[in-house]
Amino acid sequence: VQINTCGAMERSIRERVPPLLTDLYQFTMAYAYWRTGRHQEPAVFELFFRDNPFGGGFSLFAGLHDCLLFLRSFRLTDQDVEFLRSVLPPDTDPAFFQFLRGLDCSGVTLRSVPEGTVVFARVPLMEVSGPLAVVQLLETSLLCLVNYASLVCSNAARFRLAAGPKRKLLEMGLRRAQGPDGGLTASRYTYIGGFDFSSNVQAGFLFGIPVAGTMAHSYITSFTSLEEVWPQVSMLDSDKDRDGWLSRVCELLGAEPGKISEGELASFLSYAIAYPQNFLPVIDSYSVACSGLLNFCAVALALCELGYRPVGVRLDSGDLCRQSVDVHRVFRLCSEHFSISAFDSLIIVGTNNITEQSMAELNKKENAIDVVGVGTHLVTCTQQPSLGCVYKLVEVRGKPKMKISEDPEKSTVPGRKAVYRLVDAEGHPFLDLVCLAAESPPEVGGSLNCYPLRCDDSCISVIPAHVACLRQDVFTRGQVRTARGCSKVEMSRPVAVS
Amino acid sequence: VQINTCGAMERSIRERVPPLLTDLYQFTMAYAYWRTGRHQEPAVFELFFRDNPFGGGFSLFAGLHDCLLFLRSFRLTDQDVEFLRSVLPPDTDPAFFQFLRGLDCSGVTLRSVPEGTVVFARVPLMEVSGPLAVVQLLETSLLCLVNYASLVCSNAARFRLAAGPKRKLLEMGLRRAQGPDGGLTASRYTYIGGFDFSSNVQAGFLFGIPVAGTMAHSYITSFTSLEEVWPQVSMLDSDKDRDGWLSRVCELLGAEPGKISEGELASFLSYAIAYPQNFLPVIDSYSVACSGLLNFCAVALALCELGYRPVGVRLDSGDLCRQSVDVHRVFRLCSEHFSISAFDSLIIVGTNNITEQSMAELNKKENAIDVVGVGTHLVTCTQQPSLGCVYKLVEVRGKPKMKISEDPEKSTVPGRKAVYRLVDAEGHPFLDLVCLAAESPPEVGGSLNCYPLRCDDSCISVIPAHVACLRQDVFTRGQVRTARGCSKVEMSRPVAVS
Repeated sequence: VQINTCGAMERSIRERVPPLLTDLYQFTMAYAYWRTGRHQEPAVFELFFRDNPFGGGFSLFAGLHDCLLFLRSFRLTDQDVEFLRSVLPPDTDPAFFQFLRGLDCSGVTLRSVPEGTVVFARVPLMEVSGPLAVVQLLETSLLCLVNYASLVCSNAARFRLAAGPKRKLLEMGLRRAQGPDGGLTASRYTYIGGFDFSSNVQAGFLFGIPVAGTMAHSYITSFTSLEEVWPQVSMLDSDKDRDGWLSRVCELLGAEPGKISEGELASFLSYAIAYPQNFLPVIDSYSVACSGLLNFCAVALALCELGYRPVGVRLDSGDLCRQSVDVHRVFRLCSEHFSISAFDSLIIVGTNNITEQSMAELNKKENAIDVVGVGTHLVTCTQQPSLGCVYKLVEVRGKPKMKISEDPEKSTVPGRKAVYRLVDAEGHPFLDLVCLAAESPPEVGGSLNCYPLRCDDSCISVIPAHVACLRQDVFTRGQVRTARGCSKVEMSRPVAVS
Repeated sequence: VQINTCGAMERSIRERVPPLLTDLYQFTMAYAYWRTGRHQEPAVFELFFRDNPFGGGFSLFAGLHDCLLFLRSFRLTDQDVEFLRSVLPPDTDPAFFQFLRGLDCSGVTLRSVPEGTVVFARVPLMEVSGPLAVVQLLETSLLCLVNYASLVCSNAARFRLAAGPKRKLLEMGLRRAQGPDGGLTASRYTYIGGFDFSSNVQAGFLFGIPVAGTMAHSYITSFTSLEEVWPQVSMLDSDKDRDGWLSRVCELLGAEPGKISEGELASFLSYAIAYPQNFLPVIDSYSVACSGLLNFCAVALALCELGYRPVGVRLDSGDLCRQSVDVHRVFRLCSEHFSISAFDSLIIVGTNNITEQSMAELNKKENAIDVVGVGTHLVTCTQQPSLGCVYKLVEVRGKPKMKISEDPEKSTVPGRKAVYRLVDAEGHPFLDLVCLAAESPPEVGGSLNCYPLRCDDSCISVIPAHVACLRQDVFTRGQVRTARGCSKVEMSRPVAVS
């Protein structure tokens, strides 16, 4: 785990996750622990989720980086403590507030699965150990930082698996996310989950994610006539005039020049003047077939004639597959008819409420879409908008702890655990083994009996060719650590285990 | 609209919504407008949503406060501009970056529906006017700030309507929200939507929202034996000893003392010592009937005997309705048998994956739940996790603008509008009228023909008893304004129009 030590990042996490951004009951419990003298007892919590998200077979784990920044900067200010004093009962012992003022994570150790790892339900992903009152206080913030990051990262991986390896994927969900920070988290973790670009400029600025985007419909509709294009001639002052290209395209395609939007043509020309090397307009503001595609071809041909390479088009409504096939056919016609080979490599971007299902259909239906932009369904995780990670106490003063509950699936497995990833002779991980930390680790080449979760009494026997610790000590007594000692398990892109 | 002028709030919005937290295409378009000399042209955008969320009949509008802070602090730093220089094509005119460096919202005017207003699909909620390039740049941020705030506020209102007016509602979704800011936004706007408390301490600190919470299961399970309770005697040093109360409760209820968890009893005692006036434990860590309820009654009776008033219990698993009835019956039994009237006013809090549907069922099934805590389904808006507000250009240089699109429902209504809320003689709003800004306003007492949206050609005739402007100028040329001039329309709590 690499921690960016830039002060701005650390300040940002302090602003985003101040110690008060937690459930009140963490503080009421802290006082009750303190009051009975148990606040310093060594305790162990585990963070895990109970079901793989989206009805699938895996999740990606994400959010660790922010958790480390949070732990490192966890400290209550005088102002925080004064607010807590106003919220807790008036008879709360004043010495408790002094205790709060001095709290930090210098006694806390975090053992965690690495960022971006493929993980499964009920496996303890993080183990947080330290003084009971402190590790209790961390619950809500750690859950908040891991839950959505892992969920959206997993969702991105599912979109990536559905899209196949070749198609480029653009995340563009900022406007539909849960506010600014939700949007930024989405951009960051969908990139880890397998997306290629984000529309989010701040994500590029902070995390170096490649950013992409050209224009919205408003740019197109803001133009009315060719008189708004300036400079009027610079690009088209060649042997073939502007109307010449448009007429020739219309003639080739048997289209009616009268149906073409002059405003759209003006907007394309204007954009091409600004971005002669990056011309990729959205072509469905009026009608793809009757206006947008014709205008694009005319302007793109003029650009080619001047020695530039137009990039492609974006489709944002209607049947994207059918339209992309039509558009691609027109590109090939133009390429052949006008002998302009640049038209063979024009790309088509599709964006229109894409879901995981519609992404998967792109592999079944004929289409010519090269890049897919996904917003709403990616960042809100429509299919299952929360991961449901929980944070459960498993040990205090060396004694295992368990919750039973009225719902059997809410019961916890007591005791501190070790988690191993077993790998077969071909190098494929095939099983994550959860056992008590006190048990000896599985032996390479030895036969091992295990009980798959939720399969009642059935026992399977396996022989691992390689064994890796799934978790690493990433934060020890107040210090962020780099991975060492334990075998490294790193997977920044998902393997196909859906 | 009241703007908190506290510098920390403004700094916070700058941190949360820096000008780069937007889609790249806003900047690419800005350059193209600038390049063709159109960046200063007066333009008007409208913000609206196309469908009422959750298949319902209304939405609440929210997020305005953050939008105003954002507009007021909108300014690019040198660092922002340098990053944009690295992202835009190398042949971008350097003078454009000087233009960006000088940008602010001093030329922008925002006309908006007030925070918390009941609103409907396709009604323009915000009108943003100003220089074309600037109002274009604001799109993503305004959508991001309004979309989730309005969605979660509307969701809260639906939970409130489902719960009925008497039941108290607690928001507790921080750990399941889209990261820290998503959680904070949820706490803030679910309160506006009709919730009574939040578990989120920072929401209490920043916005004065009442906070609530007592303990998690981990507090209970951290205890093993009565030896961990300290001080051992302070509370129970009375004529009736601790075991006396527990035995008497078991006897009254015919329960087996052997099934009672000693750790749970220890945790309750310990909590009661810390919070003698605020005793409200969660009672399902092991078994409500065989342990939690018995331990609660014993400790609560001891508290009553010492002159304190226990508050109640929380149920967090299983069939909440059935259990609450059983618990309530036991409270009444104890009240009668031990002549302790405080047991008549104990409250029962229910929390267990509550949905809008399960909330509505509370009104149909017998139960004794006084307070309901809602997390996941409230903050993630499971039923529809995005509102889908859009921001569309409707006018440039006084000329109406329109998008047609391949999807008919994506077409826009051109021209700058006025929006009136028509009210009947009883004071009930009955129709929101959208007309062109240039048209004369509807006359009170006069008959008016209107065409309900999506009802094709059907025309209805109405006579308003009162007419109010639905929107107000809240930000004029760089300045936040307080409401005046236009009739005020304020509804901080929803009316029943579902």
